Amino acid sequence: MIESVKVIGAGRVGSAVTARLAERGISSRDDADVLLLCVPDTAIADVSRGLTPGRGWVGHTSGATPLKALDPHERRFGLHPLQSFTRARGAEQLDGTYAAITAETDDAREVGFELARLLGLRPFALAEEDRALYHAGAAIASNYLVTLHDAAAEIFEEVGAPPEGLRPLMQGVIDSGFQLTGPIARGDWATVDRHFEAIRARKPKLDSLYRVLAEATAP
Amino acid sequence: MIESVKVIGAGRVGSAVTARLAERGISSRDDADVLLLCVPDTAIADVSRGLTPGRGWVGHTSGATPLKALDPHERRFGLHPLQSFTRARGAEQLDGTYAAITAETDDAREVGFELARLLGLRPFALAEEDRALYHAGAAIASNYLVTLHDAAAEIFEEVGAPPEGLRPLMQGVIDSGFQLTGPIARGDWATVDRHFEAIRARKPKLDSLYRVLAEATAP
Repeated sequence: MIESVKVIGAGRVGSAVTARLAERGISSRDDADVLLLCVPDTAIADVSRGLTPGRGWVGHTSGATPLKALDPHERRFGLHPLQSFTRARGAEQLDGTYAAITAETDDAREVGFELARLLGLRPFALAEEDRALYHAGAAIASNYLVTLHDAAAEIFEEVGAPPEGLRPLMQGVIDSGFQLTGPIARGDWATVDRHFEAIRARKPKLDSLYRVLAEATAP
Repeated sequence: MIESVKVIGAGRVGSAVTARLAERGISSRDDADVLLLCVPDTAIADVSRGLTPGRGWVGHTSGATPLKALDPHERRFGLHPLQSFTRARGAEQLDGTYAAITAETDDAREVGFELARLLGLRPFALAEEDRALYHAGAAIASNYLVTLHDAAAEIFEEVGAPPEGLRPLMQGVIDSGFQLTGPIARGDWATVDRHFEAIRARKPKLDSLYRVLAEATAP
């Protein structure tokens, strides 16, 4: 049972994790049951090499970084919270969030799952060799959602429509369970063609984005 | 002041609008102050021609359809609720939703704004000539959000990760006010390259989608 966790790093992820552990009354000390590295991906290997191997486990919270970066520690795991964290919010960002656990042994996987549940996360197992593809999927859903928002906001500014109107629209798509509506869902290609013409005429740099997305959306 | 509205059509939009008007105690009758066409885009012109011109206003709720489709009526306007409606929900889908009002006269614009506010919508004026570009922007934010979700879900299924984990992730992006996080925000192109390799190797049909989105996201 995990009774103490030392979080290293106080960025967006580290702050939320530290806040949640405090809420749960989990103590932090240098020889904690788990040392959890919430540092930038590029710093994981260096920080890891600087830690004296002890009786505890060492984990990182990076989606992109292999477990090998935790060398020389062998009692290790990865716990990647599937969330886009902001400093403007706190531990509540963990609630309902899923977490990918990578591990090389059953014991390590159990520790990762236990820590995830302690944090209020919903753990699932991820194979190390699937990490890059998994992380690409997460980037598509989260980073590129920002890209869509920003492209739509740019168009709205061009036509004098309020970009604030995009948030309730996008929220509605999530609340509807990602049902496809609109011209492509209706097979209304005349409307899609008018979109193409308007974008080519007034926002040509968005043309290839619109085209690829339309093609990916068409049944 | 609008005292009566007759809604024509009982699809996703018409049902939500009718429910809201009932909540507000607005009566419906054939010679209502406003006849509001919530019918498929392709049916608007036919339905409009079949309506006897009366003392009231005629409006449609299509984002893509020009006002000309409301011929022969001259007292006319467009009111496009910027929302992706589902039959699974009711009038609450209108709350906080914006609405594009198109009109050819000040009187028509006033009627559109008044009706929007009566429905709990936040109206803004949209010029008829901006309609196609505006609608393309709305499609990018809403329809293509479904496309991103489905592409990410396909990847998650490939690696055995739960697609349900995408919803709290995407919700988190909205709750953070569309802040960009992840490898592109960090300038971590090595990770982006690993995404490309993984997608090419295991989900090649998503390659062009990922590429165009990465290019549109890069600063």
